[in-house]
Amino acid sequence: MKIMTEEIISRKNYIGGTWQVGKGDEFNAQNPVNGEKGEAFIAADVSQVDEAVTAAAIAFEAVRIKSMNERADLLDSIADELEALGSQLIVVCNAETGLGEARLTGERGRTCNQLRSFANLVRKGDWQQARIDTAIPDRQPLPKPDIRRIYRPLGTVAVFSASNFPLAFSTLGGDTASAIAAGNTIVVKGHPSHPATTELCTRAIQKAIEKNNFPAAMFAMVQGFSPEISKALVQHPKLKAVGFTGSTHVGRILYNIGASRPNPIPVFAEMGSTNPLVIMPKAIENRGKEIATGLAGSITLGTGQFCTKPGLVLVMKNDQYSTFIADLVEALGAINIGYFLNERIKESFRENVQKTKDTDSVEIISQKENNGNLFEVSAKKFLATPELEDEIFGPAAIVVQCEDNGELVDVIKSLGGHLTGTVHADEDTGLVDVLDALEQKVGRLIFNGFPTGVEVCPSMHHGGPYPSSTFEATTSVGTAAIERFCTVKCYQNIPQEKLPIDLQDENINKIVRLVNGVYTTDNI
Amino acid sequence: MKIMTEEIISRKNYIGGTWQVGKGDEFNAQNPVNGEKGEAFIAADVSQVDEAVTAAAIAFEAVRIKSMNERADLLDSIADELEALGSQLIVVCNAETGLGEARLTGERGRTCNQLRSFANLVRKGDWQQARIDTAIPDRQPLPKPDIRRIYRPLGTVAVFSASNFPLAFSTLGGDTASAIAAGNTIVVKGHPSHPATTELCTRAIQKAIEKNNFPAAMFAMVQGFSPEISKALVQHPKLKAVGFTGSTHVGRILYNIGASRPNPIPVFAEMGSTNPLVIMPKAIENRGKEIATGLAGSITLGTGQFCTKPGLVLVMKNDQYSTFIADLVEALGAINIGYFLNERIKESFRENVQKTKDTDSVEIISQKENNGNLFEVSAKKFLATPELEDEIFGPAAIVVQCEDNGELVDVIKSLGGHLTGTVHADEDTGLVDVLDALEQKVGRLIFNGFPTGVEVCPSMHHGGPYPSSTFEATTSVGTAAIERFCTVKCYQNIPQEKLPIDLQDENINKIVRLVNGVYTTDNI
Repeated sequence: MKIMTEEIISRKNYIGGTWQVGKGDEFNAQNPVNGEKGEAFIAADVSQVDEAVTAAAIAFEAVRIKSMNERADLLDSIADELEALGSQLIVVCNAETGLGEARLTGERGRTCNQLRSFANLVRKGDWQQARIDTAIPDRQPLPKPDIRRIYRPLGTVAVFSASNFPLAFSTLGGDTASAIAAGNTIVVKGHPSHPATTELCTRAIQKAIEKNNFPAAMFAMVQGFSPEISKALVQHPKLKAVGFTGSTHVGRILYNIGASRPNPIPVFAEMGSTNPLVIMPKAIENRGKEIATGLAGSITLGTGQFCTKPGLVLVMKNDQYSTFIADLVEALGAINIGYFLNERIKESFRENVQKTKDTDSVEIISQKENNGNLFEVSAKKFLATPELEDEIFGPAAIVVQCEDNGELVDVIKSLGGHLTGTVHADEDTGLVDVLDALEQKVGRLIFNGFPTGVEVCPSMHHGGPYPSSTFEATTSVGTAAIERFCTVKCYQNIPQEKLPIDLQDENINKIVRLVNGVYTTDNI
Repeated sequence: MKIMTEEIISRKNYIGGTWQVGKGDEFNAQNPVNGEKGEAFIAADVSQVDEAVTAAAIAFEAVRIKSMNERADLLDSIADELEALGSQLIVVCNAETGLGEARLTGERGRTCNQLRSFANLVRKGDWQQARIDTAIPDRQPLPKPDIRRIYRPLGTVAVFSASNFPLAFSTLGGDTASAIAAGNTIVVKGHPSHPATTELCTRAIQKAIEKNNFPAAMFAMVQGFSPEISKALVQHPKLKAVGFTGSTHVGRILYNIGASRPNPIPVFAEMGSTNPLVIMPKAIENRGKEIATGLAGSITLGTGQFCTKPGLVLVMKNDQYSTFIADLVEALGAINIGYFLNERIKESFRENVQKTKDTDSVEIISQKENNGNLFEVSAKKFLATPELEDEIFGPAAIVVQCEDNGELVDVIKSLGGHLTGTVHADEDTGLVDVLDALEQKVGRLIFNGFPTGVEVCPSMHHGGPYPSSTFEATTSVGTAAIERFCTVKCYQNIPQEKLPIDLQDENINKIVRLVNGVYTTDNI
């Protein structure tokens, strides 16, 4: 971490458009590979959080009236500035996360793609769900007024950085990109595991904001680790919504704070998920080894520190079962996994693995220092031990042995909510029941694939029934994520020139609008 | 209420597809016109609420797989059965609400229109926001999977009937219609002011369900008034969402219960709103008398018991001010208003009027037994007395005298959230600032009109910043209301025949879908 010289990394907070020395406590990031501590950062305190939100709320007045093209240009510019950080960003981020340069280079690409895909979305304009119902002055018994409705910016929102995606779900990640796309101002709470990465990303958006003549205070970044500043941020009277990716424990605390405010706000938390993966008998029979190899890769990808890691493997016990498990153990053994993002995650993983080992009737199939941990339990025992469904964040999975299709469906029906559910099957009997039961427990249903690797596209849904997320109909990945950070406004008999441009009679941006019940790009 | 003979009105609860005698406490509705008490109903108890939700949740398994056409036919059939109740419904409802036969006949028409407009929406299918991103198997570095996303039914939802719309926002009102349209099962908590109306409406939907071969338990109705059964309903583990229309006090209690469950659920509460109405100088100058007449009608419509009643009138003090106020008082005096829906509302109205009268520096302009109550206060005093913004449910309004445009904008900026905001203006200076400030405080912005009379159409938005509603981007009126009661599912590489029909390659219903970023009705 010696590269973090004073002129590059100030270890300050970015508040109201200025870099401020924190008034909170010191904290250090730690290199997960060699354990070396980085230089101390000083967290923001509660007063600085207040200052950041207040300034961002004032900046919203100027941001909300920017055109769609201006918003899009800003997003593109942020991606450009992120790229312009060059190898320095990768080196700093790798020192803080141990994720490796290849993965981080890929993640930077993904982050820039996200920013640019929101730029394209905003420029195109269709996403605003513009609806127009024109007046019928002579309708009986009452005239029908002219009514128009559209998505509008929400206000100032908070984004909590995630530990496991230091670029794609942190300072300039999906939540920030979608919040900017929606026309909002943002206060980011940096993740204490990668503060230097957070600062570099903040410097990138600062440059983009300057170049595009947006108000500097529209984006703020506070460093820190204490629950107090997180609480102060979510409680701030001027805040309108929160985006969070992390543990169920912390997500629920933030959700509760948002819901118990004098004026409640939504905390869109994407939290724990064990991502059940079902393997049907014919799939094992036809391509057990191939599935075992893919599954081992999915369990251990990113040291298992993905929200879509398959942590529950539901298999029917048959002639091929033992061979499949042996293949899976072999495949896991062949993978050299990486490092835990921080000491807390490492410790928590060890505790959860130990807890699972200590659970009555859970068998350890595979447990080595440098590969995935695999456990085995009968469906009956699983059904009697609900805590086995809890997420173990890291490279571990539990195989649940089911006697038959009925027991498999019982296990699925017993589950809580998950982000994803996967089925490997060929011409298996009972497949319809399995898919049907699993669909009701998850946000994304996958067939003959693996849940890790979340595509960024309009159709993606990265959310699911609680506890995988707090609002299951919302997504934090893909362009539909913008809807979380919008409000809706409706205009009745408002004069043309005072309507938002995309609701005016002349459809100058040629966006798709629902006009008197018909989708069209025509003028009125 | 003598028409409520035993064979027509059983005074029972409809639970799990059977009519059950309540196990809770007795209660009586009261005729608001003559004070006569109706026969006693017996409320459901907590165990019956549990039974109702449990049965509805089981029925969901059969309801969720019904086709769009089956859902639509059910909705049309409910409207038909509601109409088939004929004059009996109007007579019974009038005895319970005192709203008058003309209003109730109109409201029945509105209720049937709502049901049929959701039927049309569902039949057409575009509302599902189907999105398809097709696979790119040879994409580098990783293949792109086939991903498809669509709205799906949510589960079992609760609907709390409103007192002020015994038909259009009660048993078979907007919330129930949109929840059925979305493919859900429903438990209605009847409003204790109109239990016989609730029972008649339940009998109508019971018939429609039978005729359309839906499971009887998909719709349940519990009567009652105690907070315990409301709490048990919102806390039920199988419940997925709640629709509520009523006071901020009760709405917030229900919201808190929903948010503090082990698995939180959204309580979509449409609550208190004072609906600020601004009158700019030139509008008063050019057509003050006309505005006064319209405003008097809007304040007193339905005895002021509308969520969109304009309760705050912001006017600039100028030469025409006194004439305008005199015109308004005269117009109010010419209106014979009706009855309060129940004793509680009447008592609460009296208390709130008294509290306003007792507020230092509030002047009483007009207060008579049988017309609207009008108060007057300076902007300075209003700004210093935040409680004057609170809704007074009933025929009352407060005129806020502003010295100039700056003070007017200050008053607007001081406001909390409201369902609507209205501006009457001609070529007034400062209009842009006024509209801009007001837009941020409301869900629906109206120009040269009145907020009462909420059009049911795709563009309507009946929601607004807290405390007017709990989720400001959702609406309880208009076809967009369906989105509250949907969840989202995403399908990755799922075989054609196992996809929801409207996500399959062949677009047999010709719905509008977003395919690879382009809106189209084409097949894949």
